Amino acid sequence: MITKKTASKILVLSAAVLAAMAQTRSSQEAEIRSILSRQEAAWNLGETEAFLQGYAPNTTFVGDKITHGLEEVRVRYQTHYPTRASMGHLTFSDLEVHMMGAEYAYVIGRWRLERTAEAGGDTGGIYTLLFQRTAKGWKIILDHTT
Amino acid sequence: MITKKTASKILVLSAAVLAAMAQTRSSQEAEIRSILSRQEAAWNLGETEAFLQGYAPNTTFVGDKITHGLEEVRVRYQTHYPTRASMGHLTFSDLEVHMMGAEYAYVIGRWRLERTAEAGGDTGGIYTLLFQRTAKGWKIILDHTT
Repeated sequence: MITKKTASKILVLSAAVLAAMAQTRSSQEAEIRSILSRQEAAWNLGETEAFLQGYAPNTTFVGDKITHGLEEVRVRYQTHYPTRASMGHLTFSDLEVHMMGAEYAYVIGRWRLERTAEAGGDTGGIYTLLFQRTAKGWKIILDHTT
Repeated sequence: MITKKTASKILVLSAAVLAAMAQTRSSQEAEIRSILSRQEAAWNLGETEAFLQGYAPNTTFVGDKITHGLEEVRVRYQTHYPTRASMGHLTFSDLEVHMMGAEYAYVIGRWRLERTAEAGGDTGGIYTLLFQRTAKGWKIILDHTT
């Protein structure tokens, strides 16, 4: 039989577990947001390789077409943004981070690229990202950018 | 100590568990593909409500802009496709279904709409979908269509 005292102990423990879970969830969200901040900063320093660190080796990029694999995604970025000027200044905004269990998360966000007219002019849009938690941290496994 | 006989039993059991997991995974993929087939069929019968059954109540649709909630997504579809002719004939192709654990999956696919010139002409693109397993079956929680 469960006594009042035991019930009260269970309640306190449950609350502690829930609080710990909430903290884990919020720290995971913070980790994902920090990866996106680092990507933004890397891009704005012209450090494409550091920017690409955010992606998993088997990532998929969906834009006008579907690009499978980090190597192909690297080529795509190099083709679309061949010069420092064409990379312009990147800003992410309106980020929504949604956890899907402990191993996956999705992000909806807006991106904006400020560039001189000669470098292609301003552009921007919306992206949805899928993150997976790997041994090397959270990595983007799917990027649909428009 | 583990005897050869025990080790062999463990091996057989492990193989059985892995086979069951693979079967579950493949039946979940089949279930998701069948939902998309039903959506395609519903659309081509002009049954928008049946088509919308594929979405979760708290779904998000990302197109030119971000639309939150099934009710808003319904309005978006009604605005973009106000007549049977504007709905044309829908075909999905090149579907990739990727499981993310037992509760989530993502899909990459292409869509094509064949329409008369008066109804807007042919159109199409790529979509990425996020599915979540719910009490009412697999439902789309995020649809990014371009």
